[in-house]
Amino acid sequence: MPRLHHFTLDPYSRRMRLALNEYGSPAELRDEQPWAPSADLFRFNAAGTLPVLVEDDGSAVSGVEALSEYLEETRNGATSLIPGNAAARAEVRRLTGWFDTKFYAEVAEPVLTEKVVRRFMPREQGGGSPEMTRVRKGLDLLKAHLDYVGRLADGRNWLAGDHLSLADLAGAAHFSAIDYIGDVPWADFPSAKAWFQRLKSRPSFRPLLADSVRGMPASKSYTDLDF
Amino acid sequence: MPRLHHFTLDPYSRRMRLALNEYGSPAELRDEQPWAPSADLFRFNAAGTLPVLVEDDGSAVSGVEALSEYLEETRNGATSLIPGNAAARAEVRRLTGWFDTKFYAEVAEPVLTEKVVRRFMPREQGGGSPEMTRVRKGLDLLKAHLDYVGRLADGRNWLAGDHLSLADLAGAAHFSAIDYIGDVPWADFPSAKAWFQRLKSRPSFRPLLADSVRGMPASKSYTDLDF
Repeated sequence: MPRLHHFTLDPYSRRMRLALNEYGSPAELRDEQPWAPSADLFRFNAAGTLPVLVEDDGSAVSGVEALSEYLEETRNGATSLIPGNAAARAEVRRLTGWFDTKFYAEVAEPVLTEKVVRRFMPREQGGGSPEMTRVRKGLDLLKAHLDYVGRLADGRNWLAGDHLSLADLAGAAHFSAIDYIGDVPWADFPSAKAWFQRLKSRPSFRPLLADSVRGMPASKSYTDLDF
Repeated sequence: MPRLHHFTLDPYSRRMRLALNEYGSPAELRDEQPWAPSADLFRFNAAGTLPVLVEDDGSAVSGVEALSEYLEETRNGATSLIPGNAAARAEVRRLTGWFDTKFYAEVAEPVLTEKVVRRFMPREQGGGSPEMTRVRKGLDLLKAHLDYVGRLADGRNWLAGDHLSLADLAGAAHFSAIDYIGDVPWADFPSAKAWFQRLKSRPSFRPLLADSVRGMPASKSYTDLDF
């Protein structure tokens, strides 16, 4: 069975788990710690970044956009996650890229680095208590992004158009990693919340709701479909 | 004719100009200043980022990976810039993503922000003289990346494999923006230099060699094919 090297709260790894589940293409999970990548991970991806998919023949695919497109090209049977004509596909990729660069840089990276990664890192590598100014700034920008997602969800069936796509999975993966630590103010953003609720109820999401990080229990509402 | 909103020394804009030239699909260029995006740019791309392609029918495509894939899907005639089977295409996209995230964050962003963008920005927006510690750190990391590119170029015909691809254009665009200000130590990295020389000699590169930024003449070797 193909193997996915991942970390539970890494938004890019979570998106690949969601995508593999939506495609109906199972993979064995191999836990990695982004702050201490295994020798195995470096062997498959010189950059040492997650996620990496290792196929049955030993070939490895890494780079989050490369892997997304690769799955679409190799697992695309009944399900396409980049559906439609060239313009529709461009919209899926634009939003996916927006989550992966802007949302990640402004929200997911500071919040997750400070509240998760630095907790596990050795002090000499930068571990320690969170820098709360970075967290607060990230959570402040999160509100503008919840508003944008809500406006998209109000005008369309799914974020990029009529069909569920990689853009929904990318967004859901980023939000759910932050939701694990209970930091998404869903109550103030009903449109974004309704969109996330639909995603959270999909069978592809179930394994993510069972996640747990050692010494860091999930927030009370994380597994609740009626949060 | 389609219109590309771009900035001369923006590596992502440069890659799109190279790609459009390689596909043989001309576009009119509309100059933008990344530090002061036009109202027009925001109308076509809510994120205000470059590049943006506006098609003859008025539809706009933005997001650098989205636009790359869109051009491949709509301009792919005699030329493919993401060639080969799914594994070969994943390698093209992995390297393209590597340049766009790692190389950009570590080298292109600090060097270009400090030495170009801050020169044009009003002081109240953060303009002023370059923070030389950021520049020096970027130029130091540039060496490791020139070494990696040289090793790839030694083992393969082009960076991602047998054929010229988007990965070569992505790399060339990042390097050439820094080359404009004369900061690439080519002499110390003969393999990377030989690869860049082949790219620089292509007809698709010619318009970029004619670029000039107001008040900032190109380095002496920028237009020289035997630099």
